[in-house]
Amino acid sequence: MDKILRIDMGADGGPKATVSPVGDYAGLGGRAMTTAVVSREVPPLCHPLGEENKLVIAPGLLSGTIASMSGRISVGCKSPLTGGIKEANSGGQAAQVIARLGYAAIILEGNPKTDDIYKILINKDGAAITIDNSLRMLTNYDLIPRITAEFGDNVACMSIGTAGEMKMNVASIACTDMELHPSRHAGRGGVGAVMGSKGVKVIVLDDTGMPMREAKDPEGFKDANKRFTAGLLKHPVTGQALPAYGTNVLANIINEAGAYPTRNFKEGRFEGTAKISGETEAEIEVKRGGLATHGCHEGCVIRCSGIYHDKDGHYLTKQPEYETVWAHGANCGIDDLDAIAMLDFLDDTYGIDTIEMGATIGVAMEAGLATFGDAEAAINLVKEVGKGSHLGRILGGGAAVTGKVYGVERVPVVKGQAMPAYDPRAVQGIGVTYATSTMGADHTAGYAIATNILKVGGYVDPLKTEGQIELSRNLQIATAAVDSTGMCLFIAFAILDQPDTFQALLDLLNAFYGLSLTGDGVVELGKKVLSMERDFNARAGFTALHDRLPRYFSTEPVAPHNVTFTVKDEDLDKVFNW
Amino acid sequence: MDKILRIDMGADGGPKATVSPVGDYAGLGGRAMTTAVVSREVPPLCHPLGEENKLVIAPGLLSGTIASMSGRISVGCKSPLTGGIKEANSGGQAAQVIARLGYAAIILEGNPKTDDIYKILINKDGAAITIDNSLRMLTNYDLIPRITAEFGDNVACMSIGTAGEMKMNVASIACTDMELHPSRHAGRGGVGAVMGSKGVKVIVLDDTGMPMREAKDPEGFKDANKRFTAGLLKHPVTGQALPAYGTNVLANIINEAGAYPTRNFKEGRFEGTAKISGETEAEIEVKRGGLATHGCHEGCVIRCSGIYHDKDGHYLTKQPEYETVWAHGANCGIDDLDAIAMLDFLDDTYGIDTIEMGATIGVAMEAGLATFGDAEAAINLVKEVGKGSHLGRILGGGAAVTGKVYGVERVPVVKGQAMPAYDPRAVQGIGVTYATSTMGADHTAGYAIATNILKVGGYVDPLKTEGQIELSRNLQIATAAVDSTGMCLFIAFAILDQPDTFQALLDLLNAFYGLSLTGDGVVELGKKVLSMERDFNARAGFTALHDRLPRYFSTEPVAPHNVTFTVKDEDLDKVFNW
Repeated sequence: MDKILRIDMGADGGPKATVSPVGDYAGLGGRAMTTAVVSREVPPLCHPLGEENKLVIAPGLLSGTIASMSGRISVGCKSPLTGGIKEANSGGQAAQVIARLGYAAIILEGNPKTDDIYKILINKDGAAITIDNSLRMLTNYDLIPRITAEFGDNVACMSIGTAGEMKMNVASIACTDMELHPSRHAGRGGVGAVMGSKGVKVIVLDDTGMPMREAKDPEGFKDANKRFTAGLLKHPVTGQALPAYGTNVLANIINEAGAYPTRNFKEGRFEGTAKISGETEAEIEVKRGGLATHGCHEGCVIRCSGIYHDKDGHYLTKQPEYETVWAHGANCGIDDLDAIAMLDFLDDTYGIDTIEMGATIGVAMEAGLATFGDAEAAINLVKEVGKGSHLGRILGGGAAVTGKVYGVERVPVVKGQAMPAYDPRAVQGIGVTYATSTMGADHTAGYAIATNILKVGGYVDPLKTEGQIELSRNLQIATAAVDSTGMCLFIAFAILDQPDTFQALLDLLNAFYGLSLTGDGVVELGKKVLSMERDFNARAGFTALHDRLPRYFSTEPVAPHNVTFTVKDEDLDKVFNW
Repeated sequence: MDKILRIDMGADGGPKATVSPVGDYAGLGGRAMTTAVVSREVPPLCHPLGEENKLVIAPGLLSGTIASMSGRISVGCKSPLTGGIKEANSGGQAAQVIARLGYAAIILEGNPKTDDIYKILINKDGAAITIDNSLRMLTNYDLIPRITAEFGDNVACMSIGTAGEMKMNVASIACTDMELHPSRHAGRGGVGAVMGSKGVKVIVLDDTGMPMREAKDPEGFKDANKRFTAGLLKHPVTGQALPAYGTNVLANIINEAGAYPTRNFKEGRFEGTAKISGETEAEIEVKRGGLATHGCHEGCVIRCSGIYHDKDGHYLTKQPEYETVWAHGANCGIDDLDAIAMLDFLDDTYGIDTIEMGATIGVAMEAGLATFGDAEAAINLVKEVGKGSHLGRILGGGAAVTGKVYGVERVPVVKGQAMPAYDPRAVQGIGVTYATSTMGADHTAGYAIATNILKVGGYVDPLKTEGQIELSRNLQIATAAVDSTGMCLFIAFAILDQPDTFQALLDLLNAFYGLSLTGDGVVELGKKVLSMERDFNARAGFTALHDRLPRYFSTEPVAPHNVTFTVKDEDLDKVFNW
């Protein structure tokens, strides 16, 4: 990982690939890399779909090694959805393969001069960029078999579906998993639209002939990985709850907490939760011959994923995640898990962020385009997006655009990005993260649910205002650092609670790179990443006034606790004071 | 004009009218009044369609008097289109009638608790607010005969068409002219959507029994008005060009200057200009028995308007303005004046801002929804807006939303509002106004065309960067003041060139109110208004970075001069340094 691959899609005479040493970006991985490149090289006032934007793909510092959980990939750009900086993070195989190919980053630059569709093959021999208009408007699930027929099965793909080609704000980038399903997505912020604007349909990654990355201290690395893995397996969240029921184990927990946003954030509890909970989901999966536990990438030991079969026992989609089940479920008043799984499949194959899509359908239902609870209508709405009808184009613009177009006032977005599956009134800590994150409303940016609800890393009462600023601040810093390692964010449960697991993570980094990083160093890295992102956003026109929830969260109480968001504006402005 | 009428549409038990003394707002008129009220009473972060927004309607300081040109009305609110403060200005009869009824402002507050449609009658006896759901989804031209059948012909109306009821960003508020045509519009920024959110379809104004407003010094006032009127008739622009050919006299002039934005701002000259020029328009109007000169309100002496008949000699619409003819003509590659007049009629009857609509169709054509030059397609697109189909909803969101939804990069907006009929690359002074105006791109906010092209008030070379900041600054200050008097902005040509006409304007104000206002006082008023607006926008989240043109105006040269916008960012930031 000592080199960067730049592909200028707008070069005279057609796209051109250049490999250069990692240079000034040495020592950065994942989100730290994408943020550094975007922050330094992308003009903050450029059009997100214009030639000045760049799509930066970066594996983490530990990707491509034997370290457990090291397969997350970061995708960065200026976001078409928020207008600010974006890092969207995904599982799947891409990070491991890119890292083994030796690239610290792949950067797509410029826009092609024609409207041709490109595929890019990256292997040990370099990059081959080819026009292939036969791929135009293929869905992800139709595309991948075409790719494996041509390039074989030892590949990982990053691709866009129809939504990305149509440059929709909801468009994701799909990463294939170990079974070559395009089921893991860099979902948020419209990164797929930026890939679409570059004319790139698919990046095919093949690490044949490339060895596993070697640590400077191989024995120390192996030892640290052993301790790290043991720590993950020991913690009740990462060792038991997540493997058994997947992320959707949260449905009952969050519903119980009164923080499960229902029918476009009107209520905090959904009467149909039992029918769509993780427990029910796992039961269905097992009964139909799917899988209730499964890893999304090589080296995963938490295995929070699964395989969801339809009623006839055929693969339908990967296990829909908690946020997806919420977005298409409770948020739309839908309690039919098969319908939700179908929506998950449609999102994945069209290449759509499930959170943004579910929130958008919630707004559309509030606008009267469909009735809350009508699963068939929801499926049809997503199909409209996939085919790009006028209605589909509106919904493909995301929740904020849909709200604007239909004159809806209750639109749960921050910086234009839809809120995920936790009501910020019932969990004030996550509200602070939604409001202040550089990314727009994003639960992963500082997952206060851990401490507010799961009592991981201590406990802060979710309904009180006290302590939420510090909680969100510390989590946002830690997250920015973890997102740079290539590690799955779920390691946070164990490293927050178990000092020896945190030390094992430090030991992994130190043994691999020959460093002597301490906890303070991790904090410094996280702060550095956040500061770069804040700086970019300020240069893009964001102010403290954009670090706010929509006003109705402060005026409209949510049942059952009948609470509003009570953290004061002046306190929100202190999150990044360090 | 010593009282304010507030109508709380959200009051318990139904809408409630209250009359109070003008109080702190004494001495303010027009834009100064709307800006003061919005700035002080509307929370800058509120939802523009929510109950916290207010719709403020204010006649000018001299409205309702015998003073020539004093019939302009200001409509203010937080704009759904820009998210900033808005003052949209219209001719027609409303200002004169409201002023004679004694109201310095009418303020619609709150949102109704039901979705009923209200009509409001305001006459010497006060305000009567009635539910009338039979008016739902009537167009303006269908509505007004219903109103006059009920209330007689001695009324002026302010109403919304279907676009306002659907709360579209493009929605205007129509004001009837002297013939009771709903043909004059407070067009920009979606003020019609705010009226729609308040549930108000029409405000019927009847000044029966109310006298003309009396000056403190009646003789001085009469004398000043005589000098003022003579000055207007003496100036070549207001005395000859505008009466003869209307505002569209500019088509040939701006086209010749290479500043006539053609096909979504791709070129600066339109090959079909001769077919849609003011000269051609006047010729057609006269030939078909329309009118080539006509005033839009009582007391107008410039008479830049007209009546446009169809081929069969029947009234089709008022004389389409220069900006309308450009927006639906050159900007869409359309050279058919009858089609443009039909588009003008459709805009007026649905209640749509013609500038935003034309710019939006230009973007839609760039997105491939229709072909440049296809007039029939353009007419059908506007009909989609009028009926609120999904496509119509997109276009009804304006140019920025349409660009977002279809992934178009070349979208000519500032602060979300479409640029009018002058290319900022070929007339750099108007570019400074577009970039920095508190209103979003708006030619009327500081009409640099006067000095850059028409050589009124001196001359600044339109293609050079020098002098544009000062020019725009001075014009923005003067405009903010003029917009507060109720005077038509076209008086500016005469008062900029003729010191005695400017003095006559001061004398009008001084004789009416018993003041001793000087030129410096006018400048102070203008600065005060702009400062309030800038302050509101800053509290709504706007920074200097929002005072920018889209980047392609700095990188993409426009023919025939092959120039880009070259005023530097740091200079734009000096416009409001005083």
